[in-house]
Amino acid sequence: MKNLQHLSSKWINVYEPFPHILLVELARDPVNAVCTEFWQAYGKLFDSIPENTPDVRALVLSSAFPEIFSAGLDLIEAGQVALATADSDPNTTDAARIALDFQRQIKPFQEAISAPSRVFFPVIAAVHGMVVGLGVDIISACDIRYKVSSWQKTTLYSFALERYAASNTKFSIKEIDIGLASDMGTLVYLPKITGNLSFIREMSYTAQWFSASKAEQVGIVSKVVEGGKDEVVAAALELAKLIASKSPIAVSGTKRLISYSTDHSVAESLEYTEIWNSAMLQTKDMMETLQSATAKRPGNFLPLNFKFGKSKL
Amino acid sequence: MKNLQHLSSKWINVYEPFPHILLVELARDPVNAVCTEFWQAYGKLFDSIPENTPDVRALVLSSAFPEIFSAGLDLIEAGQVALATADSDPNTTDAARIALDFQRQIKPFQEAISAPSRVFFPVIAAVHGMVVGLGVDIISACDIRYKVSSWQKTTLYSFALERYAASNTKFSIKEIDIGLASDMGTLVYLPKITGNLSFIREMSYTAQWFSASKAEQVGIVSKVVEGGKDEVVAAALELAKLIASKSPIAVSGTKRLISYSTDHSVAESLEYTEIWNSAMLQTKDMMETLQSATAKRPGNFLPLNFKFGKSKL
Amino acid sequence: MKNLQHLSSKWINVYEPFPHILLVELARDPVNAVCTEFWQAYGKLFDSIPENTPDVRALVLSSAFPEIFSAGLDLIEAGQVALATADSDPNTTDAARIALDFQRQIKPFQEAISAPSRVFFPVIAAVHGMVVGLGVDIISACDIRYKVSSWQKTTLYSFALERYAASNTKFSIKEIDIGLASDMGTLVYLPKITGNLSFIREMSYTAQWFSASKAEQVGIVSKVVEGGKDEVVAAALELAKLIASKSPIAVSGTKRLISYSTDHSVAESLEYTEIWNSAMLQTKDMMETLQSATAKRPGNFLPLNFKFGKSKL
Amino acid sequence: MKNLQHLSSKWINVYEPFPHILLVELARDPVNAVCTEFWQAYGKLFDSIPENTPDVRALVLSSAFPEIFSAGLDLIEAGQVALATADSDPNTTDAARIALDFQRQIKPFQEAISAPSRVFFPVIAAVHGMVVGLGVDIISACDIRYKVSSWQKTTLYSFALERYAASNTKFSIKEIDIGLASDMGTLVYLPKITGNLSFIREMSYTAQWFSASKAEQVGIVSKVVEGGKDEVVAAALELAKLIASKSPIAVSGTKRLISYSTDHSVAESLEYTEIWNSAMLQTKDMMETLQSATAKRPGNFLPLNFKFGKSKL
Amino acid sequence: MKNLQHLSSKWINVYEPFPHILLVELARDPVNAVCTEFWQAYGKLFDSIPENTPDVRALVLSSAFPEIFSAGLDLIEAGQVALATADSDPNTTDAARIALDFQRQIKPFQEAISAPSRVFFPVIAAVHGMVVGLGVDIISACDIRYKVSSWQKTTLYSFALERYAASNTKFSIKEIDIGLASDMGTLVYLPKITGNLSFIREMSYTAQWFSASKAEQVGIVSKVVEGGKDEVVAAALELAKLIASKSPIAVSGTKRLISYSTDHSVAESLEYTEIWNSAMLQTKDMMETLQSATAKRPGNFLPLNFKFGKSKL
Amino acid sequence: MKNLQHLSSKWINVYEPFPHILLVELARDPVNAVCTEFWQAYGKLFDSIPENTPDVRALVLSSAFPEIFSAGLDLIEAGQVALATADSDPNTTDAARIALDFQRQIKPFQEAISAPSRVFFPVIAAVHGMVVGLGVDIISACDIRYKVSSWQKTTLYSFALERYAASNTKFSIKEIDIGLASDMGTLVYLPKITGNLSFIREMSYTAQWFSASKAEQVGIVSKVVEGGKDEVVAAALELAKLIASKSPIAVSGTKRLISYSTDHSVAESLEYTEIWNSAMLQTKDMMETLQSATAKRPGNFLPLNFKFGKSKL
Repeated sequence: MKNLQHLSSKWINVYEPFPHILLVELARDPVNAVCTEFWQAYGKLFDSIPENTPDVRALVLSSAFPEIFSAGLDLIEAGQVALATADSDPNTTDAARIALDFQRQIKPFQEAISAPSRVFFPVIAAVHGMVVGLGVDIISACDIRYKVSSWQKTTLYSFALERYAASNTKFSIKEIDIGLASDMGTLVYLPKITGNLSFIREMSYTAQWFSASKAEQVGIVSKVVEGGKDEVVAAALELAKLIASKSPIAVSGTKRLISYSTDHSVAESLEYTEIWNSAMLQTKDMMETLQSATAKRPGNFLPLNFKFGKSKL
Repeated sequence: MKNLQHLSSKWINVYEPFPHILLVELARDPVNAVCTEFWQAYGKLFDSIPENTPDVRALVLSSAFPEIFSAGLDLIEAGQVALATADSDPNTTDAARIALDFQRQIKPFQEAISAPSRVFFPVIAAVHGMVVGLGVDIISACDIRYKVSSWQKTTLYSFALERYAASNTKFSIKEIDIGLASDMGTLVYLPKITGNLSFIREMSYTAQWFSASKAEQVGIVSKVVEGGKDEVVAAALELAKLIASKSPIAVSGTKRLISYSTDHSVAESLEYTEIWNSAMLQTKDMMETLQSATAKRPGNFLPLNFKFGKSKL
Repeated sequence: MKNLQHLSSKWINVYEPFPHILLVELARDPVNAVCTEFWQAYGKLFDSIPENTPDVRALVLSSAFPEIFSAGLDLIEAGQVALATADSDPNTTDAARIALDFQRQIKPFQEAISAPSRVFFPVIAAVHGMVVGLGVDIISACDIRYKVSSWQKTTLYSFALERYAASNTKFSIKEIDIGLASDMGTLVYLPKITGNLSFIREMSYTAQWFSASKAEQVGIVSKVVEGGKDEVVAAALELAKLIASKSPIAVSGTKRLISYSTDHSVAESLEYTEIWNSAMLQTKDMMETLQSATAKRPGNFLPLNFKFGKSKL
Repeated sequence: MKNLQHLSSKWINVYEPFPHILLVELARDPVNAVCTEFWQAYGKLFDSIPENTPDVRALVLSSAFPEIFSAGLDLIEAGQVALATADSDPNTTDAARIALDFQRQIKPFQEAISAPSRVFFPVIAAVHGMVVGLGVDIISACDIRYKVSSWQKTTLYSFALERYAASNTKFSIKEIDIGLASDMGTLVYLPKITGNLSFIREMSYTAQWFSASKAEQVGIVSKVVEGGKDEVVAAALELAKLIASKSPIAVSGTKRLISYSTDHSVAESLEYTEIWNSAMLQTKDMMETLQSATAKRPGNFLPLNFKFGKSKL
Repeated sequence: MKNLQHLSSKWINVYEPFPHILLVELARDPVNAVCTEFWQAYGKLFDSIPENTPDVRALVLSSAFPEIFSAGLDLIEAGQVALATADSDPNTTDAARIALDFQRQIKPFQEAISAPSRVFFPVIAAVHGMVVGLGVDIISACDIRYKVSSWQKTTLYSFALERYAASNTKFSIKEIDIGLASDMGTLVYLPKITGNLSFIREMSYTAQWFSASKAEQVGIVSKVVEGGKDEVVAAALELAKLIASKSPIAVSGTKRLISYSTDHSVAESLEYTEIWNSAMLQTKDMMETLQSATAKRPGNFLPLNFKFGKSKL
Repeated sequence: MKNLQHLSSKWINVYEPFPHILLVELARDPVNAVCTEFWQAYGKLFDSIPENTPDVRALVLSSAFPEIFSAGLDLIEAGQVALATADSDPNTTDAARIALDFQRQIKPFQEAISAPSRVFFPVIAAVHGMVVGLGVDIISACDIRYKVSSWQKTTLYSFALERYAASNTKFSIKEIDIGLASDMGTLVYLPKITGNLSFIREMSYTAQWFSASKAEQVGIVSKVVEGGKDEVVAAALELAKLIASKSPIAVSGTKRLISYSTDHSVAESLEYTEIWNSAMLQTKDMMETLQSATAKRPGNFLPLNFKFGKSKL
């Protein structure tokens, strides 16, 4: 499986297991605790794909560690906030300035975590092992490393993620257990992508564990795969290959239009669809799709990030 | 069963199986492929009901063909777009003008397909056989005719549709397979009316078939009826009769308020409800409902499209 | 179980079964029919909690009557509207003024019913017995009293309610049966908190009864408890205790952010989250949460309605 | 000046004074009182232009009568509402059904009056003489005919209208004087297109007359032309010719984007602009504009309603 | 001039100078500094009018002091916030809880200040003397008393206010000078009701004084009256009398629809107008307006807060 | 005047004429034609200020060339788009992919141009000489160099800009003259920040020149300064110094809240204000403002980009 060095970084492995498909493995030993450098690399990876990579049509996101997808926020790093605040000179602290400072930190963090929503192709999260909310503190995080072999939670952060969960997966919206309301997307996306707000509230207020099958029932995941990491990644890659066989223009439009619809009224969404497709229906992919289907051969589509010369607007 | 000739058209049969209830059968032989003339007639039918018909309180939409509800877009007609474009004089083509032209075509098409959302009564889709996304191409469409006996998909296009599916129904959001993003409502309505966005994305990106029971699980259909066309139509008509026994003022208001709520915030929706009901609570239907219930007789309601004289605003 | 007399009123009992937890019992004999005085007291209770009560962190809402949660609108009172209107001097009635008058009555009614969404803590509805839509008329309501022992319906009115239903609960969106469209929140909240709009429409158009298990499937309730009132209240109190053990700052923020997200786009919600948390991340609860977890002791949080002196803005 | 018979109707004259420019004269003798047939023809004219007419790039709207632009609603016709209602059988009237009936009448009326906002080219209103709000009653309207020689008001109904007013023009938002709130657009558009909401409220609450110069000051009109009908029409046609010399793709996009921006946030508008221009920047008009400017010759643009073959979507 | 004791309170005088018209004088000696008790009484006054008062159709708001309309926030009271915070036990203060506490204080304050937007009739502010932003501190406020004779600023807080300014009026958006961003409406309403955002920003960032004529130019006031308090109040009362002669149904609808339009898109506003007027066009005021105009007599309208019996919804 | 080398770039000079104030001069010889490298540097400058610079509280934007502020888009560079497209292999061009490519180019361009809206301090544009819309073509741009001494136009691109215009300034929304609809903000911001939409449409459809005094009348600029570059820059710096003397917390909040209000409803804006100020009212600036005013000394405020330690969220 081809390793894409130009995309990989210290804690993120990027492979190209099949043409047009990326497999991204989070690999910060031992539990994928998310520190600043980690989420910055994570966001930069997605944002750089259109410029730096081959003709990507689908991406599978997984963890390098079979028994844990992510333990959430790196609380060792995060703990420095409290310490720095506690130690700071009372003459120079100001709650309003601290608030502005938090805003400046939250926004790019949110943007990095939601980066998969901005790429033109679907991102499939192959969830295995435990996954815990961004936001657990330092000491809990240390304990979690050992117990990690039995933790599981989907990151849940992007509505563009196809959510596949291995049957051994367990979930926890853990932020409440470090005294904060989740602010990186969990509370924003879950009400829009599931069908049981009562359940989402219950889990968010309590950080209770819930199973993959419960997650499927309420709509967090669309399929539970029997087995562990290997099985769920394999299933996700099969889905990715199916998506990659379709017109990338049609797939990217479908992704964009669904995202738009979740945020707008029916009338607004139909009008946006009209404008969007007025350009996209001019694609040659429609003819190629029909001809390849007739000839019973795979479609041969132009790359999505086609550049017509070196033009800038 | 009374055939309403003034409402029927070449490919659409309209019956009045019970008082206040319409049964609309799509009947373009052999697979209800949707061409321009077809969708124009479809939209016109719904928009003309308030003026031209009896006191309608519910409508059941079905297909004349037991094994197929609709094969989707008439790709023979649609194929002419690609051919016309390909053959056109390169001196006179202009991507911007083509885009404006597409906008002019998409908008009335969307309006026709979403016409059921504009009538004052509920529309119940009795889905049987296969139903395929608007957007399959010419050659696939031809092949589909033969295989049609095993295809099924709900049209899904209106959030006003009560969705009843026969247990043999199968579904496919097929547009991706002709190289386009669905633009007639599938991607707009599904995120709003179901509870598993991950599943909707997966199906929309891949055109995979899914069953009636899966459709029920994720909320696309509210009931799966054992059997075929006859059974599902019978069940839908039973529901229609129940609805028709209620105050049409109350039913139409309920329809409108639910539609409004799916598109607006809680505060906006409560305020709209306040304005709406400030007129509708003045109806005599409330008294009639109570009196008829006391007397254990059916309610006797004024027609909904009551005209006070010939007044124009 | 401590009875909080200063919060209780004629038909509403308020207890403090555990520290930081309120149990509110609707107790208008015999079926909790909702008259004006009742809903005014109901709204006032919630709005006064921040000023008048101990440090509340969760609230369980139940009924004093095991077999009925609420029969809905007090139709004896409501019937006076029709009578008063019918008897009024035709020279002084005016449909426009009546409409304005209805607006003035609907708005505070809506505000009272949606009061639980405004408190800073979660409200858990422990539903048992029948619950019928606000809006049944006088005579039907009288008959319902006898049959009440087998009726059950969740009030459904607040998206902030954790919905727990006893397995013997039955539901009906009953308003259609008195000739009106529900205007106190049912049609506003249900499309947002469940995942089967087709089902919600069907029930709303027909007032059909549906079971607790169906309610769970479509997302109206998040848990069905075997047994009756005692069991569901006990389960809800367990949940309340769990919530009360968390940081109230984190819980109240989580509640607010979920509510905001259901009403706004992803981008708007992330931006709001950023502003909200820029203040809330400055809480001492984060440190206390971590220290108490380390010490394996319960967290000791400041009251939520802390007042810094007697200052007014 | 070429008379376009295929576009003209009983009370509306359509001319083509210059290539690509339409001059539309309202000509219902004697004061352009707006009856149902009139507004239906008015709306139909605008909606049919893309299909039926030459390559229109700008339109000037005026009145056939120098001293009156329009006296507003035809109150003779409108009076029949009150009479019909007063005479109707009390057993068959129902305030809720009347409300639904009003909705059915208001909506197409609104759509007809706002039709200029839907065409792809700018519409310039050359206002002269008095113009009075839609909504004066029959008897007042008859009296107004004689006094008409001194009335003037711009229709104000479309934000797409370039508003030119002759210096003798006077205005009145007259609806308050027949007991209703204007519902055809005045109260919707004026707050968005002017910069003095205090003034707009004052005029709307009182139906006071205000002058062309005041209208210019608050932003209702963008230019006051000295003289009467001839001068203001001439000035508007000069503007129309200037517009018609520009790329119709650029002009129609500019119109659409400004309209969109008045209704949406900055972020939404920028995003919409991005999607819109992603198609429109592919136009050949950009090259033609540059080449014609270099050659100091008029631009030669393809018609806007270019059809690539006979394709339907 | 009739003094309405049941509406007046310690610092607010309410008169009925003409039938259907209220004159409200702010009268907290010496400069109308706004303390909590004051704004609570102010909000309560407006909210209680529909229940407690005669048939009000217009209201003029003025000051009891010719040379000062209001000096803004009572900084003596407000200063206690800073002191209380500074003195509070550092062990019990918590920035997050203080933030929640501020929210609880800001919201009712905002609601009181914006109360005029909720009444069904227009409110005309007759501004004279200086008016200074809510938010000046204690010592500055004391100094202001003496200098008061030359200060003037409109409160600006409600978009429902007709703004009339005496020619000697001067304005200052003063909040920046006590270190806060205005939060009671200035920054919310001004961008919506004026036509020079650059000017509004400049004044808001700097608290510079600006004149009545500048205020008129940018659209803050719609008329500048020569003279002082007497002249501007007289002019405002003349306007109020004119408004009071119109149908109160039409006036209240006009107020509501303009407010709605400033907050919504054209499409949303037209749709809301349709629903609103479907009830309001059923008023008898239309017939009365026409008949009284024909007979050249004043219209005789039913009270707006007509109650049909004692009904509650 | 101190030159800030770490902020300056090839074509942008950054000075610190007074403490806390930046003066940014666009200096791409000879007419500030905007190429890709230029707008990227422009956007980067603003986005980097919070990290890299002293405690900035206001910024004046000007041009290095007295007689021209900017000639708009660098058409030499832009022309390459048309050429590249024209020359490209017809087998590899695809209108849909070109559209996606345009989207990818427009978005960062928009973000760079709107960067001033994201900084926490006001930006004052001191406009002198001609300013022409982004989007003039190569040959026109070359000609403009010579005529430049008489061109002037405000960039208009940010609603955060205080717009000061020298009296010799002239404006043109020039994009229509290169065959496109302006997409970098002109059509988005102007309807929101001015009070004469009719005028804005007229200018946008025709690229006509208009004067500084007309720009002031319709609200594009808030002050016209007699003289040329020196005078307008001096006036803008005076304003900047006044702003810099205020609490930066209060100024930044005022900027944010005004921007929010222009994009949201009154209710949404008041609620946002409540949340925003719940943190910002905790600032020490309020006490410092009051104390410094009492002591008649300048306020001494903490830097806005205060960092409490090195914490990351």
